[in-house]
Amino acid sequence: MCRWLAYSGSPLSMEDLLYKPKHSLIDQSLHARLGPHATNGDGFGIGWYGEGDEPALYKGVDPIWNDQNLREIARQVRSGLMFAHIRASTGTPVQHSNCHPFRYGKWLWMHNGQIASFQDIKRELVLAVDPALYPSIRGSSDTETFFFLALTFGLEHDPPAAVERAVRHIEKVAEGAGIPHPMRMSVAVSDGQSIWGFRYSSVGDPPSLYFSTKVETLRHQYPDMPIFQTLSHDSRLVVSEPLGDLEGAWNEVPASSYGVIRHGADEMAPFTARAS
Amino acid sequence: MCRWLAYSGSPLSMEDLLYKPKHSLIDQSLHARLGPHATNGDGFGIGWYGEGDEPALYKGVDPIWNDQNLREIARQVRSGLMFAHIRASTGTPVQHSNCHPFRYGKWLWMHNGQIASFQDIKRELVLAVDPALYPSIRGSSDTETFFFLALTFGLEHDPPAAVERAVRHIEKVAEGAGIPHPMRMSVAVSDGQSIWGFRYSSVGDPPSLYFSTKVETLRHQYPDMPIFQTLSHDSRLVVSEPLGDLEGAWNEVPASSYGVIRHGADEMAPFTARAS
Amino acid sequence: MCRWLAYSGSPLSMEDLLYKPKHSLIDQSLHARLGPHATNGDGFGIGWYGEGDEPALYKGVDPIWNDQNLREIARQVRSGLMFAHIRASTGTPVQHSNCHPFRYGKWLWMHNGQIASFQDIKRELVLAVDPALYPSIRGSSDTETFFFLALTFGLEHDPPAAVERAVRHIEKVAEGAGIPHPMRMSVAVSDGQSIWGFRYSSVGDPPSLYFSTKVETLRHQYPDMPIFQTLSHDSRLVVSEPLGDLEGAWNEVPASSYGVIRHGADEMAPFTARAS
Amino acid sequence: MCRWLAYSGSPLSMEDLLYKPKHSLIDQSLHARLGPHATNGDGFGIGWYGEGDEPALYKGVDPIWNDQNLREIARQVRSGLMFAHIRASTGTPVQHSNCHPFRYGKWLWMHNGQIASFQDIKRELVLAVDPALYPSIRGSSDTETFFFLALTFGLEHDPPAAVERAVRHIEKVAEGAGIPHPMRMSVAVSDGQSIWGFRYSSVGDPPSLYFSTKVETLRHQYPDMPIFQTLSHDSRLVVSEPLGDLEGAWNEVPASSYGVIRHGADEMAPFTARAS
Repeated sequence: MCRWLAYSGSPLSMEDLLYKPKHSLIDQSLHARLGPHATNGDGFGIGWYGEGDEPALYKGVDPIWNDQNLREIARQVRSGLMFAHIRASTGTPVQHSNCHPFRYGKWLWMHNGQIASFQDIKRELVLAVDPALYPSIRGSSDTETFFFLALTFGLEHDPPAAVERAVRHIEKVAEGAGIPHPMRMSVAVSDGQSIWGFRYSSVGDPPSLYFSTKVETLRHQYPDMPIFQTLSHDSRLVVSEPLGDLEGAWNEVPASSYGVIRHGADEMAPFTARAS
Repeated sequence: MCRWLAYSGSPLSMEDLLYKPKHSLIDQSLHARLGPHATNGDGFGIGWYGEGDEPALYKGVDPIWNDQNLREIARQVRSGLMFAHIRASTGTPVQHSNCHPFRYGKWLWMHNGQIASFQDIKRELVLAVDPALYPSIRGSSDTETFFFLALTFGLEHDPPAAVERAVRHIEKVAEGAGIPHPMRMSVAVSDGQSIWGFRYSSVGDPPSLYFSTKVETLRHQYPDMPIFQTLSHDSRLVVSEPLGDLEGAWNEVPASSYGVIRHGADEMAPFTARAS
Repeated sequence: MCRWLAYSGSPLSMEDLLYKPKHSLIDQSLHARLGPHATNGDGFGIGWYGEGDEPALYKGVDPIWNDQNLREIARQVRSGLMFAHIRASTGTPVQHSNCHPFRYGKWLWMHNGQIASFQDIKRELVLAVDPALYPSIRGSSDTETFFFLALTFGLEHDPPAAVERAVRHIEKVAEGAGIPHPMRMSVAVSDGQSIWGFRYSSVGDPPSLYFSTKVETLRHQYPDMPIFQTLSHDSRLVVSEPLGDLEGAWNEVPASSYGVIRHGADEMAPFTARAS
Repeated sequence: MCRWLAYSGSPLSMEDLLYKPKHSLIDQSLHARLGPHATNGDGFGIGWYGEGDEPALYKGVDPIWNDQNLREIARQVRSGLMFAHIRASTGTPVQHSNCHPFRYGKWLWMHNGQIASFQDIKRELVLAVDPALYPSIRGSSDTETFFFLALTFGLEHDPPAAVERAVRHIEKVAEGAGIPHPMRMSVAVSDGQSIWGFRYSSVGDPPSLYFSTKVETLRHQYPDMPIFQTLSHDSRLVVSEPLGDLEGAWNEVPASSYGVIRHGADEMAPFTARAS
């Protein structure tokens, strides 16, 4: 289980996003409240859209709370679309190539949750990846395989449909291997313009997922952060765990749903991976 | 605040010592119960007496729970005297040269606690280190400075007296700088034959410290660990936090005391750093 | 291109093996003489047979010349069968899971050379790995894929035949993808009793490979190393580059050959991967 | 011995500066031509002036040629004043706090060369550092001590005079300890507006140092780099080793001299540390 956040809106300092909130992602790396693991110390990654079409990545295998370079970079980077992820490994090695977010072209992908018994079905899942995409797989994690399945199933054209198909495929393969309920996920994906956030579980409660609805609420929640006073109205956060306690600031995404944020507007829709 | 353990007795597998106990040091790195920090993920170190007069050191800056090399080495090493330490940094950088235990010749030293406002008095403390010892200082931590002060004050000849003098000196320097109660410590030190364990605080409760009194108790506590069935009677553990819950297995060292373990025997004595 | 050595014989200190020779592997990491790269700084790995049936592994992603832990461990470990490898990456990431030697059960495998255009044929090669072995693949390198192909083709029963079949399979797949001469290799493999060393190239000169024939020669070459004075007669080294300059100490393995060392005896045989 | 470069001029992409030149700093990390070490793989550091008054730092302990994060960051950062340094350690540990450049407030400092027998005189040198500056020392290297001596002797007010005084002090202390010719240096220092480059040795040839005199020359030398076509006339490089072979592009700084670059203009002056 991991923790992540995604930001869309006015160009924001990475430092303000990562370090300033009261229950920031840095704080969550040591004291996560929701989910089974308080510590998320198995590496981290930041992705942001800046120069060029491809988003930039900064990843580390040390705990995020100790990374001195990230503190430096965070002060220098401003971006209107940022992903940040802290990892609590579910078994695959802690190495650069397994840190989220994953990138393919202009796409970013990160995940909290896991594919159950992944090692048992990894081969069959990897085989289903488009051979043209296969050489771009660099690590060994369930999340990267999931990403490349979604790409195979059309992520670049219709993200919700592609993620549904990828989940269905994983569930089908798992079922064939005697693994009844393989998926637990809150996933964020972006093409640099929109952010999609998915919340789903094959059975039971999926991992937590929240949207911040209004920048006014953020201003209220972080009165000490001048940046929020000047953010445009279209700024939004999607998080696996709220960045503070303020009543009313965070809306939970219902299970089996996804939301999409685009130019400050958001929509919510059902996510029904299970074939009926 | 950190966690540590010291073992003395029959040659024991490092794997049995570090990984097998229920509330092992590895478990404590994520779920420490006593003290202010649940997570001790800021590097670690193992010291053991094996080939040669000098103890060997293995240190890492990653969290101990992720270190794949340590799992390998732990299976290969057997030693009759081992130190292990997991760090929760109180401010100095997480780097190899700041990981405990520290070594000088045949001596090992590790520490849980801190010297308050260390940066403010570091220069004066370092100046008090014997100039002949000064070039052997490699890192920047309060613990290493404390170790070299103890060496300066005669650690190699009379450990309890030298540690008392070092603590007194630190308290005096701190007082001169307007820092009234600088020391909080549970310290372990060894010359390869004996282990001394000190528990002291300039004011209030010092960090926790426990001795296992009898190998019979360990056998009872870890019935699943064949190694304890074959340990000799003189095997002992000193720990900053008990390795399991068993009632009666662990004896708390009183505040302002130290214990020494030598050839299976132990003594306890008062530790009175404060000049009267 | 990498550098490696394999040792078989009387239990030897790892320090004597790695650090003491004049043109040691540590020296080769900065100043390799044979092959295209003078620097082999992309990680390293040591494998040795000690406690338990499985060999132990110690790997690092930093250059071997900087690894402080290895210096400590090397002083503590003695073994009668050791592998050591320093890496100059041919493209796959420098991460623990890509460092040689690779291990499967009691088997160790390391490689100097490469599979040409590996990314283009990786998928087809990985598909040929026995599905029961597939979940044991942890990294992304050509060498690990090669190892698992050899395991698939019977390495545990007949190493030379299995390596031949694996090479033939790689050559066939490569040919199908328009890659005419994919293999360049000097490979060492061991089951803890024997060491096999293979030297082969699909075309042209394969990477260098040398055997030390007699311990008497080593004694002569390293008169300052007391350990060689006491080594038993059955001690042997297989290296990708001689550890010193002494005329007559090292025998080159001919191209398209393999040697096997077992209990101090050695045999050489042709290695003919190409289907006739 | 290390390698470094400093850039001043129109905002330039860090990628263009570090990766694009033919004999780039990345190339020099594996194949340095001048000086005793071909490999500079003992960590690296980049400093640049961007957001805020303090320059930003990015440092790594791995070889620069393997750092994936640096490639990402380099694409995102543009700055009008950048320092870059690759290290070949002369003995102090390879750790973040020993990587150049060093920073104090708005000042950056980096060094190629060494203080001979530094461990023997370190204590006395560190004692001479202003006690108010002492707590800002974070590492253990000769270069950082040198930097804090220069700060102590007035770097912030008159850099050439302060560096001269620092060198004189080091030479005096060394002489007292029986070390006749302690300094070998090419040093770069900046306050964010100017760059000073010093070349000096207590005896014999100092480490190499070059200035690029005219941006027209750079345009000629790198016709494939569009960025140089659009650089302003005031862009300058100071390097310990030329970034390419083009005849006439690089001017050697004479021994016992320093240069200062400010707003595209440069001056050269003698540097006479030795008390007459």
